[in-house]
Amino acid sequence: MDYFVSIQLDKNSKTPLYQQLGDSLYDLIEKDILKANTKLPTIRSLAKKLKVNNVTVVNAYKYLEKKGVVYAQVGSGTYVSPIPIENTPSPIPFEEKKEIKQITMTKDTINFASISPSTDLFPVESFKSIVNEILERDKGNAFSYQESQGYEKLRESIADCLKSYGIFTTEDKIQVISGAQQGIDILSKALLQYGDTLFVEKPTYHGAIAAFQSRGARIIELTLEFDGMDLEVLENYLKIYHPKFIYLMPYYQNPTGYSYSLKKKRAILDLAEKYNTYIIEDDYLSDLNYSDEKNVPLKALDHRNRVVFIKSFSKILMPGLRLAFLVVPKNLMPSILSAKQTTDITTSGFIQRAFDLYLRKGLWKNHIKDICKIYKNRYLCLTSLLDEHLKDEISYIAPNGGLSIWIKLNNSIPLDKLSDLLLSRNVIIAPGSLFFLSKESSNYIRLSFAAVNEKQIQKGILILKKAIDSLKSSSSSIQPIL
Amino acid sequence: MDYFVSIQLDKNSKTPLYQQLGDSLYDLIEKDILKANTKLPTIRSLAKKLKVNNVTVVNAYKYLEKKGVVYAQVGSGTYVSPIPIENTPSPIPFEEKKEIKQITMTKDTINFASISPSTDLFPVESFKSIVNEILERDKGNAFSYQESQGYEKLRESIADCLKSYGIFTTEDKIQVISGAQQGIDILSKALLQYGDTLFVEKPTYHGAIAAFQSRGARIIELTLEFDGMDLEVLENYLKIYHPKFIYLMPYYQNPTGYSYSLKKKRAILDLAEKYNTYIIEDDYLSDLNYSDEKNVPLKALDHRNRVVFIKSFSKILMPGLRLAFLVVPKNLMPSILSAKQTTDITTSGFIQRAFDLYLRKGLWKNHIKDICKIYKNRYLCLTSLLDEHLKDEISYIAPNGGLSIWIKLNNSIPLDKLSDLLLSRNVIIAPGSLFFLSKESSNYIRLSFAAVNEKQIQKGILILKKAIDSLKSSSSSIQPIL
Repeated sequence: MDYFVSIQLDKNSKTPLYQQLGDSLYDLIEKDILKANTKLPTIRSLAKKLKVNNVTVVNAYKYLEKKGVVYAQVGSGTYVSPIPIENTPSPIPFEEKKEIKQITMTKDTINFASISPSTDLFPVESFKSIVNEILERDKGNAFSYQESQGYEKLRESIADCLKSYGIFTTEDKIQVISGAQQGIDILSKALLQYGDTLFVEKPTYHGAIAAFQSRGARIIELTLEFDGMDLEVLENYLKIYHPKFIYLMPYYQNPTGYSYSLKKKRAILDLAEKYNTYIIEDDYLSDLNYSDEKNVPLKALDHRNRVVFIKSFSKILMPGLRLAFLVVPKNLMPSILSAKQTTDITTSGFIQRAFDLYLRKGLWKNHIKDICKIYKNRYLCLTSLLDEHLKDEISYIAPNGGLSIWIKLNNSIPLDKLSDLLLSRNVIIAPGSLFFLSKESSNYIRLSFAAVNEKQIQKGILILKKAIDSLKSSSSSIQPIL
Repeated sequence: MDYFVSIQLDKNSKTPLYQQLGDSLYDLIEKDILKANTKLPTIRSLAKKLKVNNVTVVNAYKYLEKKGVVYAQVGSGTYVSPIPIENTPSPIPFEEKKEIKQITMTKDTINFASISPSTDLFPVESFKSIVNEILERDKGNAFSYQESQGYEKLRESIADCLKSYGIFTTEDKIQVISGAQQGIDILSKALLQYGDTLFVEKPTYHGAIAAFQSRGARIIELTLEFDGMDLEVLENYLKIYHPKFIYLMPYYQNPTGYSYSLKKKRAILDLAEKYNTYIIEDDYLSDLNYSDEKNVPLKALDHRNRVVFIKSFSKILMPGLRLAFLVVPKNLMPSILSAKQTTDITTSGFIQRAFDLYLRKGLWKNHIKDICKIYKNRYLCLTSLLDEHLKDEISYIAPNGGLSIWIKLNNSIPLDKLSDLLLSRNVIIAPGSLFFLSKESSNYIRLSFAAVNEKQIQKGILILKKAIDSLKSSSSSIQPIL
């Protein structure tokens, strides 16, 4: 307790004595010599020890209390405050978010909501040997700053890989990013000023909406038909609103699974040129094609450099890599590179080097082939079960690719009740309302098969059927038929 | 050449014949059957083959030309366009950037400009064994999506590690991020609306300025004195401008190397409370302390939850990890978490898991001890050389920590000439003007010793001396003495 004797007060200083004493005590508290919740000496004993008036100590304690460093307990004395005391200053608003329920997952949960692959499909073993090869080869360089545009060799091997998608580009038009979400965020920064307008499909991916909103942009939803946006509506809107860009997913769109017809793809490119706007093409899983026809990305048709192409590896390879890339019209590259620098300087060089080797060894193409087979089987299993058990209850357009099916409920079953009922039976689905900017009711659900195997799909669809049946009968027994 | 025979035209269709023909040719081009720069058949031969008028073919070729898919070469014929043709539509503006010269580095370059450690100081071997342990232990889980706030175990071990900094917090107040730059970007999104005001030190880190500008914020620079901002100026400005936050680096500030006095730190916390604002404390290298005194971060004094603490591992460990964290007042957490989700969903779980183990094994603390010794020696070497050779030419305040020294040139030597002259002798420095928002001339340079060893420092300082001498004599011989 004799820390207090060490306190030196200078009666000739301009700083009042109480403040000198307060600061000295503050020092002892900060240096953790006086621990949290320690009782300070009584007024009288400290005053006597330091040869000052009682009032000086009283004021020193008050001074510390005002700073939040000590607290007084009536009838007991003054104590050192713990840090931090959460006394919550006024909150600062951020844009409103759609509430996504926190759901506790167990081993038995049948997860039709996730479009991320289950971990057993990750090529961990081959990636492990790649990682070690990189560490052996590059040593410390694997962990130095990477150029902001991306590791040059990776950009080369990406350009090479893109040829098989019908996209012919060079490494100077590729920007490496930490996942597709970052791509959307960076494009928002590079292309959107406060108050700018852009178009999205309706419904669409909520993460994109959130990024656009965060730039203070005006977002206009255009209804998505089974083969793309309505061209007449699009042209009318382009005339009126002059959007900075149109954000779309031409293959197995999230959440609908719809794909654009070649005719609409061409027309949209023509419209982009005519109305001087850009298209952001989010290609998150065109690789998962279960048909015999070849997919043609918009970027492969982009003769006039109107398309920014985003490709992620999260849904195909491993989401935890946080790796994706953009193919960018040359004239947009400087602003996109600036935005990347401002956002996080660079994507992990270590991961970039590993993925470069993964591409160069042909492991990427093999992996796609492998998982495409697995997902196709799940897809066929899911659709045949839907057709068998739920034919009268639902309708959907078969996507023939991707990782999910957009299902319309034919009867007016309240979706929140259906979700809750399924959840109580350990089945999770994504309600369609999640994917609309306007808070409208929806009679759609997105059923995904990324994270469920065939056994789980079978079990899950039977549970879904029962849930629909029970809600149908209960709703018909309560509501009069008009 | 007989792909053309396969073209089917329907004379009864509503689509004009030329367009049908154009679309069919377009298909052949897209499918890469007609390759880039292939010559299309002559008008007459194709018309004859397809039994249509010449005009139909002429119009089909014109239709394709308008789409950018083919190009006509006068006197020669029509050819398939390569993709992409960069015909650069009108560029979209992004905020103006300070030009940083592209400098070609060689093995012999003496780099006084970088504050990133040289790769030979990275703990690659220990990290390699950690990485393998993680892959063995967590398998596919190492690559699944991580929770947006960060891997829980890592947040626990960070909270534990922070105790030695005098910061007592819990894992629910920690947000894992992909580097300090991302921290600044995310805080900008969470706290700044378009048109909001904030304060920064003058001079300061240009990456922070760029992130704030990208939010459309009004940035006010407050001159940094050797012991922190001027409190009177700060209070006056707080009264007038009501900033959303004050961004500062209390230890070994970038670029000045200055550190805040305890008195000023306390006063700034009091002012933040009084004027209801926040402080963003960017702690990028308080660990590199070459004095005997203990550093006390602002966050350790933050009894009223006014401080958001950013800590990066880039400068201490390996920049390529892209890993850092925030300690956040509880009430700000929801908006910061939202902003993180919008920005890139989550930081690589693989890297988070590896770094968690690195912390738990005590390797982090050992590494700091090791590199602190190395950097201290470089620091002592650099300062003693400056004192020996450049005493009359420069002045500086010894930072006693960090990775750089902020040097004022006593004579009015044109800095651009000095930089160029040094560059021609293979020495790079960071001119002070880089760190001011206002484009003012500056007679400061930042000399960093992160990426140079003692031998390079010795050589570099002698070159610097010669360069200053030669510019001094040349300027005095040209300019008349007034």
